[in-house]
Amino acid sequence: MAQAPFEHRVRLGVLGHGTVGKAFVDLVQLQSDAIAARSGVKLEVARVAVRDAARHRDESIAECLTEDPDFVVGDPTVDLVVEVMGGIEPARTLILKALRNGKPVVTANKALIANHGAELFEAADKAGIDLLFEAAVCGGIPLIRPLRESLRGEPIKRVLGIVNGTTNYILTKMSEEGARYSDALAEAQRLGYAEADPTADVEGHDAAAKISIVASIAFGANVVASDVYCEGIAGISPLDIAMARRLGYEVKLLAIAERDESTEAIQVRVHPAMLPKTHPLASVRDSFNAVVVDGRASGSLMFYGRGAGGDPTASSILGDVIDASINLFKGAHATLGLLSVPKLLPISETSCQYLIPLEVADEPGVLHAVSGVFAANGVSIKAAEQDGIGTSARLVFLTHEAHEAAVQRCLEDLRGLSAVAHIGAILRVIGE
Amino acid sequence: MAQAPFEHRVRLGVLGHGTVGKAFVDLVQLQSDAIAARSGVKLEVARVAVRDAARHRDESIAECLTEDPDFVVGDPTVDLVVEVMGGIEPARTLILKALRNGKPVVTANKALIANHGAELFEAADKAGIDLLFEAAVCGGIPLIRPLRESLRGEPIKRVLGIVNGTTNYILTKMSEEGARYSDALAEAQRLGYAEADPTADVEGHDAAAKISIVASIAFGANVVASDVYCEGIAGISPLDIAMARRLGYEVKLLAIAERDESTEAIQVRVHPAMLPKTHPLASVRDSFNAVVVDGRASGSLMFYGRGAGGDPTASSILGDVIDASINLFKGAHATLGLLSVPKLLPISETSCQYLIPLEVADEPGVLHAVSGVFAANGVSIKAAEQDGIGTSARLVFLTHEAHEAAVQRCLEDLRGLSAVAHIGAILRVIGE
Repeated sequence: MAQAPFEHRVRLGVLGHGTVGKAFVDLVQLQSDAIAARSGVKLEVARVAVRDAARHRDESIAECLTEDPDFVVGDPTVDLVVEVMGGIEPARTLILKALRNGKPVVTANKALIANHGAELFEAADKAGIDLLFEAAVCGGIPLIRPLRESLRGEPIKRVLGIVNGTTNYILTKMSEEGARYSDALAEAQRLGYAEADPTADVEGHDAAAKISIVASIAFGANVVASDVYCEGIAGISPLDIAMARRLGYEVKLLAIAERDESTEAIQVRVHPAMLPKTHPLASVRDSFNAVVVDGRASGSLMFYGRGAGGDPTASSILGDVIDASINLFKGAHATLGLLSVPKLLPISETSCQYLIPLEVADEPGVLHAVSGVFAANGVSIKAAEQDGIGTSARLVFLTHEAHEAAVQRCLEDLRGLSAVAHIGAILRVIGE
Repeated sequence: MAQAPFEHRVRLGVLGHGTVGKAFVDLVQLQSDAIAARSGVKLEVARVAVRDAARHRDESIAECLTEDPDFVVGDPTVDLVVEVMGGIEPARTLILKALRNGKPVVTANKALIANHGAELFEAADKAGIDLLFEAAVCGGIPLIRPLRESLRGEPIKRVLGIVNGTTNYILTKMSEEGARYSDALAEAQRLGYAEADPTADVEGHDAAAKISIVASIAFGANVVASDVYCEGIAGISPLDIAMARRLGYEVKLLAIAERDESTEAIQVRVHPAMLPKTHPLASVRDSFNAVVVDGRASGSLMFYGRGAGGDPTASSILGDVIDASINLFKGAHATLGLLSVPKLLPISETSCQYLIPLEVADEPGVLHAVSGVFAANGVSIKAAEQDGIGTSARLVFLTHEAHEAAVQRCLEDLRGLSAVAHIGAILRVIGE
């Protein structure tokens, strides 16, 4: 590799040395010379803040260790801060301090950006330095940079994503092997794809935080995690998935952000959905992530890769670190532009086709009573399937396009029917 | 949308007003206000150079039209030049002039970048301004920017791409409908996916130019189109594809760039290949493009979308134009870093599994003679299939991993056998 004509040294202060922090420090040490030759920036890990220094016996960082993160963000010999400690506090306060001290920050902190992004972006803009966060959404996949730079002029209509690897792994097992939800979850936990308490993943909260960040960038509006309507995957049965597949669909937990071009209203939600098998997201398997961006001019774009894991996340952080380093010497920085206050559309005002699975008593008149409820609420049925199982039966309906509010009223009325024992997880048809 | 606190006007000089040029001018006019609100840059189409002004009756650009591209790149009121005329000359000379005049350039010119990239990048670096070319590779897909920025620190091992929509459309028809090559090509021509003279697409030259650009960015080396080994799809029969599918593969025209980490040798080639059905590229259908980047830390990433067409290409150009405009006012510019002289590995030194289809006389001893040629050349057979067709037979071999040089010697010897009437297109197995 030819030698670059100049070389700037950039001393990094790293907050945290868990899976991602360690992978990042190792990657910097591996690639430092190649990066210097190519970009003229010589990265050097100067400080690593950890909770308990005695537990970090890695010789290569022995001299950098400190238990005082405040010291790192204040240290005048640190040029740039990498935050990989996670959580809201003290990460938020530390990042604000670093920015005020003129140090660009690269963070992988999804929860922080999803909930306090606007405050942090404003602090970075005020300081005239970079706050970059590619790694906060979908680990190793370059998504934030293409959205904020390549597609800056593109009228984006919709973003659809499989942004949680745990649930995609579980749904893949259920779909391809007919596994029950509880068995697939246990397998994911055994393999380390799911945590002991899987709530944030399986209830969709993790996906909600990610899509709120993506929506903010795609639409230039300040969407936060709590703006996102959320349904998880725990209620889905392998029978529902099998029926969806017979109808030509795959079942995926989708994160969706849409903007109405005329009203500029934004709708953001996470729920299990049926995707046509020919849709590019339908073949995203196991713990992989992928995001489809539908632009008016660009058409459908998909970004696919590893959404989590130490090495992929470290790769995203490193890209941001090099960029922020170069900007530091140019006196430039990336700006998001102002985030407007979003006009949010509630899920009740959306419409699509629905798959609705019911467990009912296997007795005369039930189909008549149930179909009456659909008719009374103006929800038109496209296909129905019935299986007897002992004294009860399984009835599954696929509706024509219907309004969410009408479907919710319909479900409410169905719950009131004595013949309806249980309503399974409803699946919305997306991507046709 | 909130108003940005400042607004810089950027006057664009556009060279060319064909499909892409017109789509770009229209997109700028549609999005100009939204871009100004979000990024502070107000884009304005100032000059449009065309060959014959009388043929461009579009009122919105009537006052901008000129038949003198030299005037556009010299006009002091033009801030930034967009080159969408195509071809090597006069595009090369015009771009060099624009750069010397201090005007950043955004180009969609694949042939020019693939053959004269190094000269142009050097001129841009010398002038300290941007030369951006996202649209030159895979139309609307953000690929160059993620490669040169997000993955700048990533040790990239391999890039695999479906980068030609015409051939992917033809192979999809042959695979899914059993169409013959000639019929699928005629259909592609009827739909406007293939040109009257389809040579550049079906022989792989278009893909070769694209992968040479991608390899240059991915590996920081000056790879040009003529460095790329190239085989097309014209010899492929629907029978070969059917057999590949029975074995669990899809057939795709792949563009491949690999780098050996220890020797730093680069291998770049385009040829039809068999991809396992579970590989993310296997489900890329019709005229879509996709590129998989395998990094040591990032793992496998895929970028998918529309590889051609006026609107998608215009979307890529617009992203670059906004970026170059912002850089212009910051006095910053993107640099590629120095491109080294590549150490190129010839295809004869690669190895993989091969599918080799033969038409042979249907007579005793043929299989024995043919298998003897494989054995004599040290090419080991993993699977074989025979179909009688009249007085001749079709023999298809799948080899174990073998060296290209040995396989080529084997094919040479097979051509010398009187019983071998024809050797079909060989398919290499990639991506396992």
